Amino acid sequence: MIMRNIIQIKSPATIANLVCGFDILGLALEEPYDIMTLEVVEKPGLEIIHTDNYQLPTIPEDNVAGAALLALLDDVKNAPGLKLTVEKRIKPGSGLGSSAASAAGAVMAASKLLDHDFSNEDLVKFAMFGEKVASGVKHADNITPCLLGGVTLIRSIMPLDIVKLDAPDLHITIVHPQIEVKTSDARQILKKEVQLKMAIKQWGNIAGLVAGFMKGDHALIGRSLEDAIIEPVRSILIPGFDEVKFRSKSAGALGGGISGSGPSIFMLNKDIETAKAVEQEMKGVYTKIGIDFKTYVTKLNTEGIKIIE
Amino acid sequence: MIMRNIIQIKSPATIANLVCGFDILGLALEEPYDIMTLEVVEKPGLEIIHTDNYQLPTIPEDNVAGAALLALLDDVKNAPGLKLTVEKRIKPGSGLGSSAASAAGAVMAASKLLDHDFSNEDLVKFAMFGEKVASGVKHADNITPCLLGGVTLIRSIMPLDIVKLDAPDLHITIVHPQIEVKTSDARQILKKEVQLKMAIKQWGNIAGLVAGFMKGDHALIGRSLEDAIIEPVRSILIPGFDEVKFRSKSAGALGGGISGSGPSIFMLNKDIETAKAVEQEMKGVYTKIGIDFKTYVTKLNTEGIKIIE
Repeated sequence: MIMRNIIQIKSPATIANLVCGFDILGLALEEPYDIMTLEVVEKPGLEIIHTDNYQLPTIPEDNVAGAALLALLDDVKNAPGLKLTVEKRIKPGSGLGSSAASAAGAVMAASKLLDHDFSNEDLVKFAMFGEKVASGVKHADNITPCLLGGVTLIRSIMPLDIVKLDAPDLHITIVHPQIEVKTSDARQILKKEVQLKMAIKQWGNIAGLVAGFMKGDHALIGRSLEDAIIEPVRSILIPGFDEVKFRSKSAGALGGGISGSGPSIFMLNKDIETAKAVEQEMKGVYTKIGIDFKTYVTKLNTEGIKIIE
Repeated sequence: MIMRNIIQIKSPATIANLVCGFDILGLALEEPYDIMTLEVVEKPGLEIIHTDNYQLPTIPEDNVAGAALLALLDDVKNAPGLKLTVEKRIKPGSGLGSSAASAAGAVMAASKLLDHDFSNEDLVKFAMFGEKVASGVKHADNITPCLLGGVTLIRSIMPLDIVKLDAPDLHITIVHPQIEVKTSDARQILKKEVQLKMAIKQWGNIAGLVAGFMKGDHALIGRSLEDAIIEPVRSILIPGFDEVKFRSKSAGALGGGISGSGPSIFMLNKDIETAKAVEQEMKGVYTKIGIDFKTYVTKLNTEGIKIIE
């Protein structure tokens, strides 16, 4: 039963990992976001149009949104012809979940347009086919917050077990230094083994971070945003990282770190004034170093993907 | 300013580790508990009397409660003479926080009796001197739930950062097979390194467990009570462990595992009927194996140490 024949959505950028929550925690941002329009058309099959300038493939199987949509359509009987128009505003390779926004946005739009009652777990699974096209790996840590909004936990990937966590208002500052960090490189340099005592430290911080979000305890969130395992290794790929972190925290940020596998760096803040002060510090660092950058001052997005019309 | 000259308290048993929460999570039990009486006496110094039959040392420096009390008294000006009478009901070496109950009970009783405004962190630190006497290590994972009640998180031991977590009603079944597992042995057999992918699995479960407690989501608590790192190694020291776990979960337990470093095994349950059914399974296993045992059917103790009079 088709209730409408066109839908337009905003699919938000997301931050995966959240410092100590490597591979399990993520959150959705108010900005930036992609705009995606999905419409029922007479021509059977799936057509993809990009109105942005990122020269992404438009063959459905090779396109992140397309591959996710095809996975969903496999589960729909008598699906109509569809046309997906994507205006990508989240720069690919930024570490802000650009491919997840495409994949999650496409499946959410289709589920609404086709009025099909998929579970959140189903939608995450379909969208993971898009992530596989993007990075070769079916990860869900950006998809989940994009779809559900707020702060999300992937307790287990197999079987998939996702949990939305309560969280207080958070103002988020991001700097995206315009350098390339490949996800595959960022994963490659990680050590395969960790010391038990470091792992224990990490799980104390993860537990503290989850408790901090759920209690709305900004100070506990800040104390828990420590990562002794991944960040020391990965941050060497991001020039200026240590200085951004130090200056941001001195300016009042609760804490933060690498967004996804980088190169973007994010900082969580209690209020907008601090978020803006942190932005000035980030600008200062990359202006001094001489690397092009883009900054965002945004908020935690509690809804995830939003229907525009 | 002394408000009273005698105080009697119940100091509860506790479960440390909570499966995936090795070294960071713990909870307090309604039963068993020690009864401790602290009174102001004319004779200066500290006298310790045990009315139980465990033949524990009564020289204050060598006694768990005594060492903790001496650490506290170091911070009190003009302390009066004190007499501590301990009726130990939590068997030493059970894995149920017997030494923590002595140490935490002693410092809580003293802080109330002397009407001294110590912080929770102060009390934990004093009590850790008692744990050092008991096991040679200043750990806090039994002390913290004993003092605070409920489910507690030690986010960081240095600096000490303790967090009490909300939790739903939980009915808890425990079996204490009467064998000896030394904490030092149980620690020795752990591998010093863990695979990153196993650590990630573990931190997903820890985050899920914290979220499950705070949401009061019994099913999520159950799914999160998995430990792929510590339990497979330590459980070999406890005959019948796998069968107890399998039969308890078949009888409806949410999940559980080794209490502290063992040999006691605990199971969390949603209701008293399940807790009692689980007890029958535990009895069945150890009767069959032919190892003496003791069982408890109890509840989460949300208050911790309680003043009797």
